Amino acid sequence: MRVVVVGLGVIGGSFAMALKECGYEDVYGIDVDRETLIKAKNLQLIKDGFVDGKEILKTADLVVISIYPKLVKQFIISNIDNFKDGAIITDATGIKKMFIQDIIDVLPENIDFIFGHPMAGREKKGIDFATNDVFKGANYILTPIKRNKEENLKLIESLAYKIGFKRVKRITPEYHDEMIGFTSQLPHALAVALINSDIEGRDTGSFIGDSYRDLTRIANINENLWSELFLGNKENLLKCIESFEIELDKLKDAIRDEDKESLKKLFIKSTKRREKL
Amino acid sequence: MRVVVVGLGVIGGSFAMALKECGYEDVYGIDVDRETLIKAKNLQLIKDGFVDGKEILKTADLVVISIYPKLVKQFIISNIDNFKDGAIITDATGIKKMFIQDIIDVLPENIDFIFGHPMAGREKKGIDFATNDVFKGANYILTPIKRNKEENLKLIESLAYKIGFKRVKRITPEYHDEMIGFTSQLPHALAVALINSDIEGRDTGSFIGDSYRDLTRIANINENLWSELFLGNKENLLKCIESFEIELDKLKDAIRDEDKESLKKLFIKSTKRREKL
Repeated sequence: MRVVVVGLGVIGGSFAMALKECGYEDVYGIDVDRETLIKAKNLQLIKDGFVDGKEILKTADLVVISIYPKLVKQFIISNIDNFKDGAIITDATGIKKMFIQDIIDVLPENIDFIFGHPMAGREKKGIDFATNDVFKGANYILTPIKRNKEENLKLIESLAYKIGFKRVKRITPEYHDEMIGFTSQLPHALAVALINSDIEGRDTGSFIGDSYRDLTRIANINENLWSELFLGNKENLLKCIESFEIELDKLKDAIRDEDKESLKKLFIKSTKRREKL
Repeated sequence: MRVVVVGLGVIGGSFAMALKECGYEDVYGIDVDRETLIKAKNLQLIKDGFVDGKEILKTADLVVISIYPKLVKQFIISNIDNFKDGAIITDATGIKKMFIQDIIDVLPENIDFIFGHPMAGREKKGIDFATNDVFKGANYILTPIKRNKEENLKLIESLAYKIGFKRVKRITPEYHDEMIGFTSQLPHALAVALINSDIEGRDTGSFIGDSYRDLTRIANINENLWSELFLGNKENLLKCIESFEIELDKLKDAIRDEDKESLKKLFIKSTKRREKL
């Protein structure tokens, strides 16, 4: 099976690395950045690299696309005549419903796009931060569409387990976006708001423990990617923020009213939920 | 120097362990739980254990108190005649202003209480989770009061470095509470509200990545301790929550208005701040 990874950033690069680790050798890369291609080749993550799909896509059985969501459609359109008949495409995009609708419009009949979301990432960008470790033990979500072939879904599933994912789930794009709004986008919003609410110029670093460090790690955020993800899941994310605010208000009220019992109940609830995770 | 650790929970136990590791042998423990004392003795963290201070406090040069904030005053009162003349007391309490005022009222003249806050902890309670590792590289804050002797402040400072802390800072109790409201209490409030805002019964565990895991770790919270800490720092914490809400609203507005540029600006700001940490 010949694999072409499109976009050798932190996710694409990690994919290539993980594929190599479990024995896939026929792996090629496409990236607009020549330096990235050279690095990937030097690291032996890819056999060869290309700045576009003209040549290599024609021989690709599996295309793993890991570029910014908005660029995926453009990539499909530009390469509409380059895909091999029966090729499988998969992606790593963190939003699904709007994204899938957008892609399906332009997708040729003879290509099977298995939409997926490997729930792994790093705060850093670029191939220098690629590592197959990032997938170990992580969750992978597939959001099948009607036209997907079962054998192709199974192929991506088995590949996911091979490269280290612990759990692969199939759900609807709608449910994906609802859940991801809560488990991924809301935490990012909170981390950003937390660190941005600090008073400028204080020596905050002298007063932090693990909690502040952990909660702000993801405030180091790729603004181009995450502004797309947030806006591509607007309604779900707004709903999650509102539910969060209701819970924060409960804490605020209990503190303001010096209502120790209510505070304790909220803490007991959160502890139980965290222990169940 | 004879040290008595009062309260062999996760912090007191870790203190005893760290003291042992750097060569202190004359260490004793006080705890209301006999089983804890037996464990501490078996682990050779203490030479001997006592359920009260009647006997051992009389010989203690340094008393490290790590029990719930509200219990500290009661401990001082109960042992008012047991402390050695010139003894040093220090604590591990996460709030300072109200707490110190409360203690000073009952503190005998011949005892020097060096108020401190080792900024380290674990979600778990009890001696079974004690580990000197928790102090390695962490911040330690001292909030001196007028009557503290410089030599005693220096002693605690040097002890903090010996047991692994990276930085020891002296600040006012007021500034401590302001900063801790932001760097410690606010993150705990956010973690609790985040996990409590989940919809009951969903299979959230299948959709989490590192971000949700990191942001909810401290939602596993000791309700007795943290309700005291929150209420003991009410005004500062409420102010921090309000500042946070203003920042979260900025994100919310940008999402609702599909204002990508504003979103990006907020992300760039948070990234810069996080990188500076």
